[in-house]
Amino acid sequence: MKPFIGDDFLLSTKTAEILYRDYAAKMPVFDYHCHVSPEEIANDRAFDNISQIWLSGDHYKWRLMRACGSEEKYVTGDAPDFEKFRAFAAALPRAAGNPVYHWAHLELKRYFDCDLVISPETAGEIWELCNEKLRGGLTARKIIKASNVTAICTTDDPADSLEWHVQMKSDADFDTDVRPAFRPDRAFNAEKPDFREYMGTLGKAAGIPIKTLDDVYGALKNRMDFFHKNGCRISDHGLDYMFRRENEETAGKAFLKAMNGKTLSLEENECYKTALLFFCGKEYHRRKWAMQLHFNVVRSVNTAMFRTLGADTGFDCIRAGGGGDGLIRFLDALAVENRLPKTVLYSLEPSDSMLLATIAGCFHEAGVPSKVRLGAAWWFNDTKAGIIKQLTAFADTGVLGNFTGMLTDSRSFLSYTRHEYFRRILCDMLGGWAENGEYPADTEALGRMVSDISYNNALEYFLGDSRNSPSFR
Amino acid sequence: MKPFIGDDFLLSTKTAEILYRDYAAKMPVFDYHCHVSPEEIANDRAFDNISQIWLSGDHYKWRLMRACGSEEKYVTGDAPDFEKFRAFAAALPRAAGNPVYHWAHLELKRYFDCDLVISPETAGEIWELCNEKLRGGLTARKIIKASNVTAICTTDDPADSLEWHVQMKSDADFDTDVRPAFRPDRAFNAEKPDFREYMGTLGKAAGIPIKTLDDVYGALKNRMDFFHKNGCRISDHGLDYMFRRENEETAGKAFLKAMNGKTLSLEENECYKTALLFFCGKEYHRRKWAMQLHFNVVRSVNTAMFRTLGADTGFDCIRAGGGGDGLIRFLDALAVENRLPKTVLYSLEPSDSMLLATIAGCFHEAGVPSKVRLGAAWWFNDTKAGIIKQLTAFADTGVLGNFTGMLTDSRSFLSYTRHEYFRRILCDMLGGWAENGEYPADTEALGRMVSDISYNNALEYFLGDSRNSPSFR
Amino acid sequence: MKPFIGDDFLLSTKTAEILYRDYAAKMPVFDYHCHVSPEEIANDRAFDNISQIWLSGDHYKWRLMRACGSEEKYVTGDAPDFEKFRAFAAALPRAAGNPVYHWAHLELKRYFDCDLVISPETAGEIWELCNEKLRGGLTARKIIKASNVTAICTTDDPADSLEWHVQMKSDADFDTDVRPAFRPDRAFNAEKPDFREYMGTLGKAAGIPIKTLDDVYGALKNRMDFFHKNGCRISDHGLDYMFRRENEETAGKAFLKAMNGKTLSLEENECYKTALLFFCGKEYHRRKWAMQLHFNVVRSVNTAMFRTLGADTGFDCIRAGGGGDGLIRFLDALAVENRLPKTVLYSLEPSDSMLLATIAGCFHEAGVPSKVRLGAAWWFNDTKAGIIKQLTAFADTGVLGNFTGMLTDSRSFLSYTRHEYFRRILCDMLGGWAENGEYPADTEALGRMVSDISYNNALEYFLGDSRNSPSFR
Repeated sequence: MKPFIGDDFLLSTKTAEILYRDYAAKMPVFDYHCHVSPEEIANDRAFDNISQIWLSGDHYKWRLMRACGSEEKYVTGDAPDFEKFRAFAAALPRAAGNPVYHWAHLELKRYFDCDLVISPETAGEIWELCNEKLRGGLTARKIIKASNVTAICTTDDPADSLEWHVQMKSDADFDTDVRPAFRPDRAFNAEKPDFREYMGTLGKAAGIPIKTLDDVYGALKNRMDFFHKNGCRISDHGLDYMFRRENEETAGKAFLKAMNGKTLSLEENECYKTALLFFCGKEYHRRKWAMQLHFNVVRSVNTAMFRTLGADTGFDCIRAGGGGDGLIRFLDALAVENRLPKTVLYSLEPSDSMLLATIAGCFHEAGVPSKVRLGAAWWFNDTKAGIIKQLTAFADTGVLGNFTGMLTDSRSFLSYTRHEYFRRILCDMLGGWAENGEYPADTEALGRMVSDISYNNALEYFLGDSRNSPSFR
Repeated sequence: MKPFIGDDFLLSTKTAEILYRDYAAKMPVFDYHCHVSPEEIANDRAFDNISQIWLSGDHYKWRLMRACGSEEKYVTGDAPDFEKFRAFAAALPRAAGNPVYHWAHLELKRYFDCDLVISPETAGEIWELCNEKLRGGLTARKIIKASNVTAICTTDDPADSLEWHVQMKSDADFDTDVRPAFRPDRAFNAEKPDFREYMGTLGKAAGIPIKTLDDVYGALKNRMDFFHKNGCRISDHGLDYMFRRENEETAGKAFLKAMNGKTLSLEENECYKTALLFFCGKEYHRRKWAMQLHFNVVRSVNTAMFRTLGADTGFDCIRAGGGGDGLIRFLDALAVENRLPKTVLYSLEPSDSMLLATIAGCFHEAGVPSKVRLGAAWWFNDTKAGIIKQLTAFADTGVLGNFTGMLTDSRSFLSYTRHEYFRRILCDMLGGWAENGEYPADTEALGRMVSDISYNNALEYFLGDSRNSPSFR
Repeated sequence: MKPFIGDDFLLSTKTAEILYRDYAAKMPVFDYHCHVSPEEIANDRAFDNISQIWLSGDHYKWRLMRACGSEEKYVTGDAPDFEKFRAFAAALPRAAGNPVYHWAHLELKRYFDCDLVISPETAGEIWELCNEKLRGGLTARKIIKASNVTAICTTDDPADSLEWHVQMKSDADFDTDVRPAFRPDRAFNAEKPDFREYMGTLGKAAGIPIKTLDDVYGALKNRMDFFHKNGCRISDHGLDYMFRRENEETAGKAFLKAMNGKTLSLEENECYKTALLFFCGKEYHRRKWAMQLHFNVVRSVNTAMFRTLGADTGFDCIRAGGGGDGLIRFLDALAVENRLPKTVLYSLEPSDSMLLATIAGCFHEAGVPSKVRLGAAWWFNDTKAGIIKQLTAFADTGVLGNFTGMLTDSRSFLSYTRHEYFRRILCDMLGGWAENGEYPADTEALGRMVSDISYNNALEYFLGDSRNSPSFR
């Protein structure tokens, strides 16, 4: 019987423990994809209470609370913060096996020195204890430093001024490298009611009045240059599914139609998005940026809740059946022009992992290890089983030692423990292989692989920083 | 080396054993979905021999026998009962890992006190031993009582008279609560040759001559009321796949066309079924019934065998690629009118489990924990691996403590051991988490969760009976 | 801590060890599907160095090298053989968990008595050691004999002269039974530029000038007879996906159109392929041949690399979303005419395994155990996890004791260790069940099952040789 989330949490062999303790735990964190606010880092946000930092903005926790029948006022509504926390504490104990169960307790331990088990009975004590720490100076930056985070990529709209990134660059007090990531989703969403308005905003940011598709290209290019100057090296796309319907003429007309407030047909919409994504891919390649593709999601499926709460409030689900056809043709079209950028594939559908891993394996490039690669287990898949499934697919079909490891994808500064969670599972897998005679008992070699996957690979792949370059090459 | 199906069967840790012995094993059974005959319960059917109760009607066993090359006369034909049993005993030993292997031996142990391993050599001895018990009074009701079954929901056509349910209600000798469940598949199957005839039967039962789609609505409403009066609280649908093509006018015309014996187009068929399912959902909601949706099946795929043996004879398979689109739009359409009933989702495609779990998680309601929920591993998935996969998907994406647990889905009275089988796997999972430091070693809390999932949750969710209401809330 | 690939490699229980040592390891190999060259067997090819036998033709290894950023000259190009080997040795250590990691070291141990771990540091020593063995007489036939291979089915085009098979038949020095397998892919590929040319070749081989679809039928029939006379009992199809669009008239016209060098529509193409596959199925049935169907692949997805290197060079991937509809209707159409041959189903999409296993279970025939059956884990799925997944799907839905076991599917004579790899995993699964109380601890019964799956079943199913007929029947 192991203690609950003890030192050897998720580590079932001696070798796994050594790999974690002597290698994984020592590596810093490069959180190359997340949704924390650069403003809050710049201003070193302080928090009044644990609900503010834990519950506001965390749709994982919201779903669990709703699943336990919580009224919405305790979830996203106007109930007092402590009542929200108590509602969460009442829901959590029933969520055995859910990653939130593990994350929440890991966060309590790592940031609040608190070994209590969350329950309605302990809710009051935890509330006090955490709030004391928070009020005692556990600010955004303190958490980042305590988590040994050397670099962060936030997620930013092309029209963003990046003012906070600029400010942080000249801030001598804070040496974590906070970079923007380029996420032009709003430029793609021609079906959204605010598309036209957004094009105005984008045009203004770029200094290019947007009338045609070519103007969109021009404005995005301009913003990419601006982002690049401010440290951006990664882009990111949130797409419902991967498509490829190639017709530049239809794309141009579709754009004009959308700007006139008209509804596009599926074909027009796909033509527009195809053209824009292809353009972006080529521009990323020119700048040596990596392109992250997130897809196979259905968003805001509960219309009633969407009307009340808007998007990104915990009513999204997996999209099945996207297949690989659109993705394959998209990657190939770039590759055939020798303009395919480094690309990371994330699908919300767990059954896609082998499919995507084998597609990725068709688009390598000399000198760029795993140029196209399967991304970390994403969102609903960021669980113990999901991480194991993703690592297995990666290893079975390719070179696990090239994997870029974990990211938080989170809105909360407390989520860096997700890196710990991942690293423990990784070490358990590699350690288990060694103990089981499936890999030589060469702790040093395995340790280098752990260090690479935990940190070095991401640094090299995304930032071209090979100071700690992967060890076997 | 553990003994074959010993006391600690499927329980690999001390905590798992405690959870099973002190909690799971003590809980009664609520078999909320099965296909046993209410007439046989009412009349307390006796059995001449083990083939009658074991082989007749069990297409799981038929498939195994056919897979071993059995001639059909030993499967569903007119071979003597002992020869059929011997053919089954010859096939089974090769089916290592198949759940039927476990179920069959569990049933021998639990109901016949028989520890023999089934094989051609032991077939004669087992035959004698079982038949002696059966002739000695091991009747339908004895088995039900021995299995500690407090409530059963049978599966009944809307036109059914429910005479046996009525009779049992006033039967002081038998206190298991036997309720009907409403399964209107025949009203949906406009493509079947007996559709028109069935509408006659339904109309007669309801006292409403059926001429139009509105008459179908009227007749079903009438029968729902009748079913409700007779204890029904659950409905059930067996659908090829989930669809949503909304056009009430086309639906009405399609109905008339089908009643004229004409073949409907796919569009007409889907419009008709969409309208009817939407109607049913709203009516279930009004009555606070739960709606069970079973889908992604291809039935009777072997035309030659269908011609000889008819439907439900072991020639069905998984349907892939249904996606979630139809289901999402169906649930949303009900939710937006505030008429979504409690809904349980069962897909025969195991790759759907994460998809369905995340869809379910978008349709919660305050005060109704996990209003829409993933159902138990169904049919071909009701295996050790399938159950683990289903529990993992449920836990990873939601609140496992809300899960409604197992059902037999069986035509045989001996199948209650499937609850034991499930509970052992559940306890092994939860116990393993505790031993592994993934959940606190709080046996009492885990035990309550086990009790809830084994029994209490189903009672509350389906019958609104919260005497044993889930413990954490 | 177990030694790396020691005697108990992949065997985690005592029973598993016994099953492997006393049963699996003693069985010969029937490699019923592979891509080795009959000419090389006939001529007992010798090899100059390890790169020749290991790297040339092995797209699994090519993908790993490319994934590590190798330049193409080290992969398929004109770099010296030792430099290629060194590039492979540099890539492999990072590929922990990949089956190539295990296969490569197993092959070193079994054929070269070499316990070294492959790495850039050991590359030179391994190179010398292996080459010495190769030059010392480790020829194709020596490897086959050392691997205890009693029978091999190569993969042959219908137009092939089978000269090497004929020659080997009368070769008293070599008693391994080398048979052709009939793979008419080129007759199906009406979309390929060389289709017309191929029809010329096929017609010449058959002595039938091919002008119409009926001529194709006639020529294939003629070649099947020729293949049958030369020992062929197995056919094999490599299809992008399973389809069924039945229209003999369109098929005939489509053929003429393709012969005129015109591009077929999807419908025409599917009609042509449907007609031809249906014809083949019936002819296989008449000859009691087994039909192997390989599908759900996307081939040559990287156009740039296809232009440089051609097909089958490591740029293929999984195809998703094929569904089961085409397959079901194809099997049913044959079954309804009582002309369904023994059929083995292989999909590259791992999520298909349960789907295919349940489809297979609908098409049994008295006297022919598991007439339609799920094939071994194929290509990207031929990994530890993939094999376990395939065995689990087979066992969960059918009769594992009927499974036909492993094949190499390889171009290299060193791949027979894949049978060992598979058998160890099989023994670990069965042994684990016995140790865990999930199957009786009857080592003899389990051992018979292991022997059947390892060898006897394939001999009976494919060659009708039941000398070692499955033990339980």
